[in-house]
Amino acid sequence: MISTKIPKMIYGGDYNPEQYDRETMNEDIRMFKSAKIDFVRVNIFAWAISQKDEVSYDFQWLDEVIDTLYENEIKVGIGTGTAAHPAWLAKKYPDVLRTEFDGKKRKFGGRHNSCPNSLTYQKYASLFVKKLVERYQKHPAVLLWNISNEWGGACYCENCEKAFRVWLKEKYRTLDHVNKAWNTTFWGHTFYDWDEIVTPNLLSEHFGERHTMFQGISLDYARFNSDSMLECHKMEYDIIKKSLPDTIVTTNIMGAYKPLDYQKWAPYMDVIAWDNYPSIETPTSYTAMMHDLMRGLKNGEPFMLMEQTPSQQNWQPYNALKRPGVMRLWSYQAVAHGSDTVLFFQMRRSSGACEKFHGAVIDHVGHENTRVFKEVAELGEELDQLSDTLLNSRVQSKVAIVFDWDNWWAVEYSSGPSISLKYVDEVHKYYKALFDQNIQVDMIGVQEDLSQYEVVIAPVLYMVKPGYAKKIEDFVEKGGIFLTTFLSGIVDENDLVTLGGYPGELRHVLGIWSEEIDALAPEHTNKIVMEKEYGLLKDVYSCSLLFDLIHSEGAEVIATYGKDFYQGRPVVTKNKFGKGQAWYVASSPDDAFLQGLINEIIKEKGIRNDFSGNEPGVEITKRIKGDKTYVFVLNHNSDTVHIELSSVTGLNLLTGEEVFQSIELASYDVAIIEQSK
Amino acid sequence: MISTKIPKMIYGGDYNPEQYDRETMNEDIRMFKSAKIDFVRVNIFAWAISQKDEVSYDFQWLDEVIDTLYENEIKVGIGTGTAAHPAWLAKKYPDVLRTEFDGKKRKFGGRHNSCPNSLTYQKYASLFVKKLVERYQKHPAVLLWNISNEWGGACYCENCEKAFRVWLKEKYRTLDHVNKAWNTTFWGHTFYDWDEIVTPNLLSEHFGERHTMFQGISLDYARFNSDSMLECHKMEYDIIKKSLPDTIVTTNIMGAYKPLDYQKWAPYMDVIAWDNYPSIETPTSYTAMMHDLMRGLKNGEPFMLMEQTPSQQNWQPYNALKRPGVMRLWSYQAVAHGSDTVLFFQMRRSSGACEKFHGAVIDHVGHENTRVFKEVAELGEELDQLSDTLLNSRVQSKVAIVFDWDNWWAVEYSSGPSISLKYVDEVHKYYKALFDQNIQVDMIGVQEDLSQYEVVIAPVLYMVKPGYAKKIEDFVEKGGIFLTTFLSGIVDENDLVTLGGYPGELRHVLGIWSEEIDALAPEHTNKIVMEKEYGLLKDVYSCSLLFDLIHSEGAEVIATYGKDFYQGRPVVTKNKFGKGQAWYVASSPDDAFLQGLINEIIKEKGIRNDFSGNEPGVEITKRIKGDKTYVFVLNHNSDTVHIELSSVTGLNLLTGEEVFQSIELASYDVAIIEQSK
Amino acid sequence: MISTKIPKMIYGGDYNPEQYDRETMNEDIRMFKSAKIDFVRVNIFAWAISQKDEVSYDFQWLDEVIDTLYENEIKVGIGTGTAAHPAWLAKKYPDVLRTEFDGKKRKFGGRHNSCPNSLTYQKYASLFVKKLVERYQKHPAVLLWNISNEWGGACYCENCEKAFRVWLKEKYRTLDHVNKAWNTTFWGHTFYDWDEIVTPNLLSEHFGERHTMFQGISLDYARFNSDSMLECHKMEYDIIKKSLPDTIVTTNIMGAYKPLDYQKWAPYMDVIAWDNYPSIETPTSYTAMMHDLMRGLKNGEPFMLMEQTPSQQNWQPYNALKRPGVMRLWSYQAVAHGSDTVLFFQMRRSSGACEKFHGAVIDHVGHENTRVFKEVAELGEELDQLSDTLLNSRVQSKVAIVFDWDNWWAVEYSSGPSISLKYVDEVHKYYKALFDQNIQVDMIGVQEDLSQYEVVIAPVLYMVKPGYAKKIEDFVEKGGIFLTTFLSGIVDENDLVTLGGYPGELRHVLGIWSEEIDALAPEHTNKIVMEKEYGLLKDVYSCSLLFDLIHSEGAEVIATYGKDFYQGRPVVTKNKFGKGQAWYVASSPDDAFLQGLINEIIKEKGIRNDFSGNEPGVEITKRIKGDKTYVFVLNHNSDTVHIELSSVTGLNLLTGEEVFQSIELASYDVAIIEQSK
Repeated sequence: MISTKIPKMIYGGDYNPEQYDRETMNEDIRMFKSAKIDFVRVNIFAWAISQKDEVSYDFQWLDEVIDTLYENEIKVGIGTGTAAHPAWLAKKYPDVLRTEFDGKKRKFGGRHNSCPNSLTYQKYASLFVKKLVERYQKHPAVLLWNISNEWGGACYCENCEKAFRVWLKEKYRTLDHVNKAWNTTFWGHTFYDWDEIVTPNLLSEHFGERHTMFQGISLDYARFNSDSMLECHKMEYDIIKKSLPDTIVTTNIMGAYKPLDYQKWAPYMDVIAWDNYPSIETPTSYTAMMHDLMRGLKNGEPFMLMEQTPSQQNWQPYNALKRPGVMRLWSYQAVAHGSDTVLFFQMRRSSGACEKFHGAVIDHVGHENTRVFKEVAELGEELDQLSDTLLNSRVQSKVAIVFDWDNWWAVEYSSGPSISLKYVDEVHKYYKALFDQNIQVDMIGVQEDLSQYEVVIAPVLYMVKPGYAKKIEDFVEKGGIFLTTFLSGIVDENDLVTLGGYPGELRHVLGIWSEEIDALAPEHTNKIVMEKEYGLLKDVYSCSLLFDLIHSEGAEVIATYGKDFYQGRPVVTKNKFGKGQAWYVASSPDDAFLQGLINEIIKEKGIRNDFSGNEPGVEITKRIKGDKTYVFVLNHNSDTVHIELSSVTGLNLLTGEEVFQSIELASYDVAIIEQSK
Repeated sequence: MISTKIPKMIYGGDYNPEQYDRETMNEDIRMFKSAKIDFVRVNIFAWAISQKDEVSYDFQWLDEVIDTLYENEIKVGIGTGTAAHPAWLAKKYPDVLRTEFDGKKRKFGGRHNSCPNSLTYQKYASLFVKKLVERYQKHPAVLLWNISNEWGGACYCENCEKAFRVWLKEKYRTLDHVNKAWNTTFWGHTFYDWDEIVTPNLLSEHFGERHTMFQGISLDYARFNSDSMLECHKMEYDIIKKSLPDTIVTTNIMGAYKPLDYQKWAPYMDVIAWDNYPSIETPTSYTAMMHDLMRGLKNGEPFMLMEQTPSQQNWQPYNALKRPGVMRLWSYQAVAHGSDTVLFFQMRRSSGACEKFHGAVIDHVGHENTRVFKEVAELGEELDQLSDTLLNSRVQSKVAIVFDWDNWWAVEYSSGPSISLKYVDEVHKYYKALFDQNIQVDMIGVQEDLSQYEVVIAPVLYMVKPGYAKKIEDFVEKGGIFLTTFLSGIVDENDLVTLGGYPGELRHVLGIWSEEIDALAPEHTNKIVMEKEYGLLKDVYSCSLLFDLIHSEGAEVIATYGKDFYQGRPVVTKNKFGKGQAWYVASSPDDAFLQGLINEIIKEKGIRNDFSGNEPGVEITKRIKGDKTYVFVLNHNSDTVHIELSSVTGLNLLTGEEVFQSIELASYDVAIIEQSK
Repeated sequence: MISTKIPKMIYGGDYNPEQYDRETMNEDIRMFKSAKIDFVRVNIFAWAISQKDEVSYDFQWLDEVIDTLYENEIKVGIGTGTAAHPAWLAKKYPDVLRTEFDGKKRKFGGRHNSCPNSLTYQKYASLFVKKLVERYQKHPAVLLWNISNEWGGACYCENCEKAFRVWLKEKYRTLDHVNKAWNTTFWGHTFYDWDEIVTPNLLSEHFGERHTMFQGISLDYARFNSDSMLECHKMEYDIIKKSLPDTIVTTNIMGAYKPLDYQKWAPYMDVIAWDNYPSIETPTSYTAMMHDLMRGLKNGEPFMLMEQTPSQQNWQPYNALKRPGVMRLWSYQAVAHGSDTVLFFQMRRSSGACEKFHGAVIDHVGHENTRVFKEVAELGEELDQLSDTLLNSRVQSKVAIVFDWDNWWAVEYSSGPSISLKYVDEVHKYYKALFDQNIQVDMIGVQEDLSQYEVVIAPVLYMVKPGYAKKIEDFVEKGGIFLTTFLSGIVDENDLVTLGGYPGELRHVLGIWSEEIDALAPEHTNKIVMEKEYGLLKDVYSCSLLFDLIHSEGAEVIATYGKDFYQGRPVVTKNKFGKGQAWYVASSPDDAFLQGLINEIIKEKGIRNDFSGNEPGVEITKRIKGDKTYVFVLNHNSDTVHIELSSVTGLNLLTGEEVFQSIELASYDVAIIEQSK
């Protein structure tokens, strides 16, 4: 946990002084100080600078950087630099280069360019990290180690093919098990020798972006690829930890990034650190969900906002500026969801190559008289004032949403029923319904204990892993409310259908049988007709995407379809099970329905948000430490709003003013109210 | 002809018990019987299961399957299993793998994965089929042999390149002939050695999906590729026929599937068998046209509906369920157009891989209490009642539409005049005008005799093969009505323009000269202005796509363009020629015009449909056997309709009720009225 | 300059008699004469015909063609034939084949298929051209030599990779300079050996169509590729010039063709010759701009319209016919902008391969009784009447628009700020504003002297090359008006940002600082609010795309943004500098604003068009020779218009009628009024 190492919320970000001269660095540091910047991340892509061949290392430049920063009381996050291998390595040892999804062998270029199963890459990356550790392990400036940078992508080379077979042998032991897990009797794919197995890509089982002819092998390859990168990560992690068991080691990850199963990565990150890059169109609720997903990776421990842009990006189609106040607002949104840092990419804009148009604290103009720098400096001042107040405070949620990478891969690798089904979108629909009512949520994996929650929502829980149905039954039996949707309970961990009727292992707890699944193009919707008023739900609502045709096997029918040949059949059911309830939503409803449904469910469990109304565009969260509760009020609107806060009273830490049950916030403004209790 | 071998319309479909256990097979068979299922197709993709290396065959599992089916009085269509080669074959002999259109060599994966010119593939496929024939030639359960499955795709490997040169040598004898046929003086492509010729693909003459810089070579490669697969098919056909000269041998084909010229394949199929997979959006008339195209491959002999889904598919973007009644309706539509079977893919859903969401007679739930199974069982009962009544009855048409694969390839390989021109769409426009008036149509190739027809329609007859213009002239001379459209008569069989004025060899019979061809984007339409009332045609109509600027050379001008610089020039002409007429439609008209035109043309030839009105969404066809006429009335509407049937009277075989000149049919309902005479 | 060699405007075009027989050629020549066609371009793609192996040349066919043409008094432009290499060369020496952007090695096919860095290609192309020169150098029919044909594309093979390193060595001398120019410290790309540098393509730095991770290397590769082709061009140029120093040698180029920097090519073309292929949707102003761009390549010298279609094309999506009169109108438009020729592709349509649907003077019908041939013959008659009247007359402009290929590449390689930014579109917006007011424009490169201009407009002058800022300052100082836009002055010639504040080196002359650049999706627009009335500008206008947030540093604020957080900040500024003015337009305005702005600016400099009104769709230009001014009036409208011409009086050379201050022109009609003075 980073908060044990720092006296205040660290503030700063990525810094690449190797791109400029010493004089510029001095000027940078002067400006950093004026903005209360006290932490920078260095050496992220500097492997090639420090090592010019197999045997020659030269860290003089880095010594100078780190020493100078130290002299100026700026802490350092030291990157291991392995996120881009040197050109000489690629030229001499082409096995370090990746092979793409379509089978093309890459040349040197870009970043994240190494094959994770290249022994050459592993050898020279290890050696480089060892040299770094040797040199900087005792340096007092170093606050943490950052392995690589935004691990990602995938490789399909021969080395990976061979490593995949080994990975499969370890997992399945016999080919019989593989053949069974992948259902290879279909289309005559029986394997008689491990070496007959090839990487599943556009040359073999895949066609188009996300389609595969064999889900089993593709799913295992997705796991293998994530594991392969994790092995590289662990290799570096172990090197650093061996010498520095007490230091913080992490890597910066990317929210709902599909290729890597971060839930398996989290044990090898001492603190979760992530890069938050919403566009001007990203819903506020989506960003919030990402923060919660990241916080959920490590049991709710505070995380690091490792990167965000102070202003604009360069890789969006349209790179809008962050409007005045928005950088501060989104920084506090991260904190409101559990971040103990506010960090940027990047401190100074590069003058050439593809990120020259990416925003920076110090712009190409080079001085501090810019809107962006001023906003950064003002926030620096505030964070300085806040000192350690918020550090290590916790978010407490009674509601969990289940998010599972394997399930994501599996549901989207499936051929049918609908190409419009996107796992993250369906999860976000439910998240948003909670968010709009200011109910805090934990985003959890299937390995998590459920006993601390009152409500567990698992949208499109297509894959039910061994033991998970039992876990849910126990949860409901003891009084929990569980909710899931269409296309749940379909397959096991190998994407093999659970025979005997959908939703498979969840059928018992849900008290329903789903006989068929209709899929229609987006323009074809159906209606949700309430059987009777249910809380706020009294109208007719719309639903779309998939339409499970279910039979109640004991569940109460809450609403029915309003048209088509399944008019009158259940679309929403509630099953009493033990002391709890298990809900099934058989189609993808509109927002209004979900708002009403969620409102009713949380009311049943007595979950309240302590605020009298839900002002549109106003987000309210709490972090708790000891006997203090910090209420974050964030106005995402571009105009001033008056917000009723019911029983909330206390000091607004950002203004020093007392707040009594309501507050007025200007456009994009934030309040952090400290309550005792 | 399959009807000589069977006592009733066989009912069943694809069955893959190798994906489940013996107990499940027993349960399947119990259910088959309850649904009157009496035929299944087995071993379709089972090569890899039965052969684990070059020398080891093990058919025990298949013995058990076939014996058990036989014991239960279920007939078997035995697949040769060569549609997917085993993984070990690919690993040891990579020449069996295809090379794609973009030059990428494939690895093992998917299906239809063999290079047709791989000698290794040919060797081991032959050996496998021989083993199968040896083992099952006397098995009394076997009703027919099904070679491979849905032959398709193309290969561009070195073996194919070499085989292509040999194919060219056989066709052209000298390079001079090749150079002339391909017009290689254009862009300096003169070949001086056969080995200079390379496969035309994205690495050589092609760019984008359908564009080629040399139509001649691309057209020949399309023929070569279709021929290469046909050779593989014939290889298996000959093996089976050698031992079993009287058995039925076929392969399941796919309607208007562009890569394979089925008109050349038909002689090597003892019965036409095809797989019908309309989506929820497919026009009824399009499905009808596909049935007629398939029936036309073999002189109108009854065909097999070899595959259809009982419910939904998995590979459409949105896989809608077949609405209640639709499976039955579409089954009878196949019969109404000449099918003597109703067969499904698949009997039991697979539990894994890409077709796990494809509909099946027995669903994952595994029991018979599903809507789908019940509909299957009800139809089974009906077909059982129908017994052999309809078998081998024939469709009789006085109208033919010409459909030619070479022409399809050539017109769509051409660069210009318009990317919106799709051959099948233009053919379907004319088919639909006839269909909407319940006029039965034969879809015929250019090799067919025309003497049995009164009207022959050849939309976009771009390519006129040797002798075909003469055949049309003879047809018209003797009194036939011939109709063709814009962009006809342009090229010979090598895609070389017939010089001297469009429509080339058709100019004489049509009595026109087409000076220029205008092409406009779809939003730019012109008008068809009638010279005078012509039957029902009296308004102004719309046309689009291409606009031939024609001069009459004796033809009567029926209608003229209504705007643009060619306003007043002919758009529709009729030429009296001998005892007949030759029509030219110089643009692509709207539906209303085509309805009126077709109505008038058929009236001229005294072709009537015996039905007093054309109820929208109601399809009526006839099959005739001996002195019986079976009138099929199919209500494609989702509500009940009352249909006037003029002189039709007789017994509705599906209800046992007498029909007298009209009938009321519920949503999706069908009647088959047996008339004497 | 071609006009020194010819007695009249030559008329004719591409002729490929090798595709037909001798009899057809005789018939062609008869028709040529009837249409006053006196020039054809031959041998363009005929390499393969004349050379069947490394040592055998046979030019007999070409002798016959050229002799026959000569006998018939038709002049010849002789192509060098190297635009498509023979198949035998590709088979024997695969190094002549290109490697594509995605790394795929091509096979034989298409045209423009040679790797420019293939020594084999260079050797055999040279030899072939030498043979041609030897044979035809004294032939009296030959008027000019045409090297290759439409040079284009790019290659990424190993030979190119090696040649690229050599090109870099020559340019940068040391790797330190390369590393600096490309900013390789970013993402750890430091090169320690020249051989570590690989071609930038989809296998290395590029992703998607136009994105690169390193602009520096991609920009240099674009230059290298253009230079490589230019080297091949110069190789042929030198061979011909060595034997024939006084002959005209050129190559036909393609307007704003991105891959080749024609401004660097122009010195090696004795006359600019270009191929003009507008579609039916191309704005008239765009075609005009292309003519001016081409004329500008060689200091305004008259150019050759080398190709245009007499009727339709084949490679557009929808290949519309040129409406009656349009071919003549567009021919005179070329002349009105400086062409001294009117030439077509092609004389006779090919009968096969991909251009069989491309329009031709002689169509497939083969005779002269076609609309197209008649229009060609009528124009031939007119051009014959015009004799040498217009030859070598000049366009005189006081306004220049800067167009720079390096800038084009750089601005569109950049990642951010907006994918919607297209350099040519922004240039065209300003061109159109001038065009609509009938103000003639020179399109000039950055190497051109500015002293002859009153107004210089440089839209999106993103890259400012060494010395160019000084050149502009001098120009303004002396009284010129300079105008530039958003995203100007950002980088140097290596795409490295000019630090210290945008617009970099232009900041001084413009008197502004651009602090930030906002980018919004196309649907988000802002408003331009005038500070006060400015000429015709008095309303509120719209702007979009990019939005520079600028500060005046002395410039007068002419207009401000009307909304968003930068409401009230300058959007249009004018800086007095010396005797002149420097304007900055910080966003992309609508047409109405640009019309008003341009109107005001030219009024300030006393630039007038001598015509009293600007009739929509009527284009008016002047060419001047000695004491004669030729006023071209072109009616692009499809109906008759009456045009006020103010002081213009004189003889309409096309009708022989006197014009006095106004004229009426029918649809698509043209007048050329000869004025004295």
